[in-house]
Amino acid sequence: MHPFDPLTPREITKVAAITRPLFPGKNPNFRVITLKEPLKEEMVHFLDQEHRGLPVTTRPARIARVQVVIRDDFGSNQLIELFIDLDKAEVTKQQHLVGKHSFIDSEYMKAVEKACMADERVQKEIQTLNLPPNASVVVEAWAYATDGMNDMSQRTSMCWFYMRLLDNPDANYYAYPLDLCAEVSEQLQVTKIYRLPSSENERVHNNSQPFDHNKIHSTMASEYHPSLRPPPRATTKPYQVVQPEGPSFKTHGNLLTWEKWQMRVGFNYREGLTLHDIRYDDRSLFYRLSLAEMFVPYGDPRSPYPRKGAFDLGNDGAGINANNLRLGCDCLGVINYFDGWHNTSSGEPMKLPNVVCCHEQDDGILWKHTNFRTQNAVVTRSRILVLQTIITVSNYEYIFAFHFGQDASIHYEVRATGILSTCPINIGDKVPYGTIVAPGVLAPYHQHLFSLRIDPSIDGHANSLQVEESNPMPLNDPTTHNPFGVGYTTSSTIVQNEGGHDLDFTKSRRFKIINEQKINPITGTPVGFMLNPCYSQMLLAHPESFHSKRSEFSNHAVWVTRYDDEEIFPAGRHTMQSTGGEGIASGIEQRRNDDTAKTSVRNEDIVIWHTFGSTHNPRIEDWPVMPSEKMVVGLKPVNFFAANPGLDVAVSTQEENQSVLVEGGKDETCCKL
Amino acid sequence: MHPFDPLTPREITKVAAITRPLFPGKNPNFRVITLKEPLKEEMVHFLDQEHRGLPVTTRPARIARVQVVIRDDFGSNQLIELFIDLDKAEVTKQQHLVGKHSFIDSEYMKAVEKACMADERVQKEIQTLNLPPNASVVVEAWAYATDGMNDMSQRTSMCWFYMRLLDNPDANYYAYPLDLCAEVSEQLQVTKIYRLPSSENERVHNNSQPFDHNKIHSTMASEYHPSLRPPPRATTKPYQVVQPEGPSFKTHGNLLTWEKWQMRVGFNYREGLTLHDIRYDDRSLFYRLSLAEMFVPYGDPRSPYPRKGAFDLGNDGAGINANNLRLGCDCLGVINYFDGWHNTSSGEPMKLPNVVCCHEQDDGILWKHTNFRTQNAVVTRSRILVLQTIITVSNYEYIFAFHFGQDASIHYEVRATGILSTCPINIGDKVPYGTIVAPGVLAPYHQHLFSLRIDPSIDGHANSLQVEESNPMPLNDPTTHNPFGVGYTTSSTIVQNEGGHDLDFTKSRRFKIINEQKINPITGTPVGFMLNPCYSQMLLAHPESFHSKRSEFSNHAVWVTRYDDEEIFPAGRHTMQSTGGEGIASGIEQRRNDDTAKTSVRNEDIVIWHTFGSTHNPRIEDWPVMPSEKMVVGLKPVNFFAANPGLDVAVSTQEENQSVLVEGGKDETCCKL
Repeated sequence: MHPFDPLTPREITKVAAITRPLFPGKNPNFRVITLKEPLKEEMVHFLDQEHRGLPVTTRPARIARVQVVIRDDFGSNQLIELFIDLDKAEVTKQQHLVGKHSFIDSEYMKAVEKACMADERVQKEIQTLNLPPNASVVVEAWAYATDGMNDMSQRTSMCWFYMRLLDNPDANYYAYPLDLCAEVSEQLQVTKIYRLPSSENERVHNNSQPFDHNKIHSTMASEYHPSLRPPPRATTKPYQVVQPEGPSFKTHGNLLTWEKWQMRVGFNYREGLTLHDIRYDDRSLFYRLSLAEMFVPYGDPRSPYPRKGAFDLGNDGAGINANNLRLGCDCLGVINYFDGWHNTSSGEPMKLPNVVCCHEQDDGILWKHTNFRTQNAVVTRSRILVLQTIITVSNYEYIFAFHFGQDASIHYEVRATGILSTCPINIGDKVPYGTIVAPGVLAPYHQHLFSLRIDPSIDGHANSLQVEESNPMPLNDPTTHNPFGVGYTTSSTIVQNEGGHDLDFTKSRRFKIINEQKINPITGTPVGFMLNPCYSQMLLAHPESFHSKRSEFSNHAVWVTRYDDEEIFPAGRHTMQSTGGEGIASGIEQRRNDDTAKTSVRNEDIVIWHTFGSTHNPRIEDWPVMPSEKMVVGLKPVNFFAANPGLDVAVSTQEENQSVLVEGGKDETCCKL
Repeated sequence: MHPFDPLTPREITKVAAITRPLFPGKNPNFRVITLKEPLKEEMVHFLDQEHRGLPVTTRPARIARVQVVIRDDFGSNQLIELFIDLDKAEVTKQQHLVGKHSFIDSEYMKAVEKACMADERVQKEIQTLNLPPNASVVVEAWAYATDGMNDMSQRTSMCWFYMRLLDNPDANYYAYPLDLCAEVSEQLQVTKIYRLPSSENERVHNNSQPFDHNKIHSTMASEYHPSLRPPPRATTKPYQVVQPEGPSFKTHGNLLTWEKWQMRVGFNYREGLTLHDIRYDDRSLFYRLSLAEMFVPYGDPRSPYPRKGAFDLGNDGAGINANNLRLGCDCLGVINYFDGWHNTSSGEPMKLPNVVCCHEQDDGILWKHTNFRTQNAVVTRSRILVLQTIITVSNYEYIFAFHFGQDASIHYEVRATGILSTCPINIGDKVPYGTIVAPGVLAPYHQHLFSLRIDPSIDGHANSLQVEESNPMPLNDPTTHNPFGVGYTTSSTIVQNEGGHDLDFTKSRRFKIINEQKINPITGTPVGFMLNPCYSQMLLAHPESFHSKRSEFSNHAVWVTRYDDEEIFPAGRHTMQSTGGEGIASGIEQRRNDDTAKTSVRNEDIVIWHTFGSTHNPRIEDWPVMPSEKMVVGLKPVNFFAANPGLDVAVSTQEENQSVLVEGGKDETCCKL
């Protein structure tokens, strides 16, 4: 076992066995049995020995983080967290997480749906809708986004109602959002039923209005499932990736090596894919990379829509909701899959098969130069290693992929796809915070805000964040030589204290993670990696709103904090019905106000958090299923190496690439060297 | 012949034959024989008939644009432009372009080098450098970027000196920039020789200093050519693209169809690849798309470096400098090449082989949704059609590619690669406007600024530019309902008059090209296409500098103008030693001050120009050859269609994709439907 390896099925079983006797007669509901990653202090020492090839003298303790829900004597669910030392088989910490709630899962969502549909008042209300006879009502339960209206001591679900008109479970019910809403308690009781606003000025009400049958429209406009559609276009000819000598990567357990890269693949219920101890050509680059949180707030101001604001990691889990990826569907070429492991509610290990696919892609030209004197062209193709995971969170899909390049670059690509969340609107009405995508179907404006957590170890763990800008030199300034007005220079500052920063492309503002102790012998500047950010609008919700208080990371594009073993989640560890004050900004503020706490981030073990995403004002082209919307973040070496790290990539040859001239084309072969 | 087809070799021959007798005894130097594209007014009529399947009643006249250089009686070169009607075989216009200069080409650059090296004073100066005995001096001629210092009536070349220490013509001489500079006249006379500044405070001078032999460094650090390097990494296994049923595209002459796209491929000496009459599913989208100009100003303020500012289209030509693309090197899969045609100086047709490659690429997942109730996943892969052209302009390479998507999106991707332009610096010195990439080698800061010309025809030629922003709704405003502070709305304005606009991601400012006469029946909004811009810093040079005056497009990210048959180049038609006042801003200004000129751009035939690029402050990783730096611009439908245009793409199956599980992996097959 390597300390970064996720818990094995055997370890999960062992942890459950240690946990159960602690709650006699309580039948604990196991929510989480996951690795509590080793303390960094211990890991740094371990990795140093490992990479120097020394015998490992001490191993960090192997600890599990366990969360169980226990029904208390008053019938309320209580969330308990335990740390269990696997080597010693003992509990090292046990804490009652008072007022905190566990994530929501599809099992529970289905139970909520069932409870809703079994409720007589709900059924009565559905009657008043006067739905078509072939309608099947579908209930979708969402985690309740805090809006300050309800007592938060109970986990509550918001239930949105839809219908299917086709007798096919894959029919797209989002095409028929119904004017009905219910709230369901943790104990699966329907606590409130009401009707939704259906125009800009209408408010939540209890007046039963029937469904407008004019909203019924052609299936052609709303179905995506091939069983419900005419035959697809037949013009797209097959396209296959062939790797006759197999892939260029190797795995040994969770250790992955490819070209000059080396890293360890991790996976947990919440973040899904995590990457650890990322190195290039035997030099340390990043201690850990992960998507740490995402927030999807909706911009419809009418109650109850402010309760639509999804923390898809904290409330749902990118690991639990990771797709089982299938050969030939989600990637091309030679594929390696990694499985994940979670646990059942009774504490048995549960396999999450094929949650990460690992494969290579051709990425066009890596570099090229033609000497115009000799006409000799030298061209290399760019091969990338892709680690991809895809999650489904109710209506939406997110495709997350790390791309590693032969030039030592890393790109993190997010694609948003899936189906828009919809709500009802009267035919003929419009609102300024949504798009009509079908008759009576409003797709409200919303944002997708991601937080990429970058824990750097650029040639070591003491790093700094440098902010560089490109500025014109002044003209007609006697102290500056810029006679022709063309000069520009860079100015940079090194960030001294924790905080949030914003992007400014008008100044080419660049964020470099540098190691001030390691000077590049040629350039004379500190070695570093540069963040190529994704330019995105930050949170639109008002700073006084719960959306803002709960998603503290969403107000600045680049955050820098001191490393803290427990600070992994920028909106806090417990996002379910959180009320704010637990995120990254609060952590920084608390340390700033604490005389005993350190706040310096210069030459320290730091963490960089990049907030990015999209303000998604739907197009009708996003309906009924959305073409992937790509967002890309880059990390690139800047004066880290002695030259282009991809300089030794072999030149591209027809002999290897076996391209084919289109039929009837001229017979030409590749440039020979 | 289609009116958009470039001139054929036969037409070029005919034009030259018509031209020669006009200059008896003058032996005209043919610089350009190219298609003068048809007047839009005529083409709109023609295309309308063509697409309605009507007999074409009138064809636009087939006109050639010719530029010849004639040596006048005083030995000066004069540039003459002619329009020749090919059908009538007659000259319809002849103009002496007084004070304008033709582009620079590699033939001339080589002649300049030869003239330099033959000059005794140059040789004497080289002697004083005391170069190593194995040194070969290389001279690189650049177009002279106007700095206001010289009389501009003559075309002048700036000569930069380098040396090779290896006896190999592909050795990277940019690794040894020499402290020497010469100016050469149009008549190939060396008019000035001087030494370069080699520190921040040094200026141009005539004091002969020897070359510092401490600058000589290992070839490993500076060579890119495989013949000069150790064997490449052998870890990258072959990766082939196989299309067993051939490509999904079809060509018929220059008409290209693929999936639901249709367009005509054009090519000219200056812009290189141009695209015409771009349609999707038989609806008109764009009349013409092309890269219209690019400018590469250097930020080193010291004379003579303000003379480094390259208009790579206007001064060099993206067509003339387009690479001959080779099978298996520049693309994978089934490739179709397009040739271009230019002319020799004596007026013979000259083939530019394989200047555009056309092929398909897999682009990951187009859309996916998993119904969490049924666990049924539906996933489609994204196929894109790529039209790629690569140019070499002295040291640099640019890879330009249009990507067409099955979701009706277009992406224009630029990759910058090749070799940094370098200049000498004393060992131990630093400057704030460049990076030291090797001993004594300064890679100065510079910008790459591109202008993508978008001539829309969104469901017709009368279009408008709409600027949309996403704004938070006010809190505690009695006139607005936003009780929870989460609401946000879009506001938009339609641009009324010609002008330049800037990007603002903090407001999600979006530029939509719309047709106000065509309302989407579902969304109730005008049909449109949205620009997904590339966020880039604009020109850093001072507004009073010649760099700024000459590259008017480089001061704003989005320009809108009324269509004008003659307004194709945003820095003016003649950029060689231009002095400003000829670009897009001047055109707008002139029309604004002209009471008879129209300036409205609402519901008019308009053109959108997007300025983007990079502020390139070199990294040592860009040396000795630069890993591709990608920039991407998107054009996406926004409420143009009735639904996702890629909805009918067939689902991804293992049967078609033939992926392979890594050896030792589990046997799993693709999701079946």
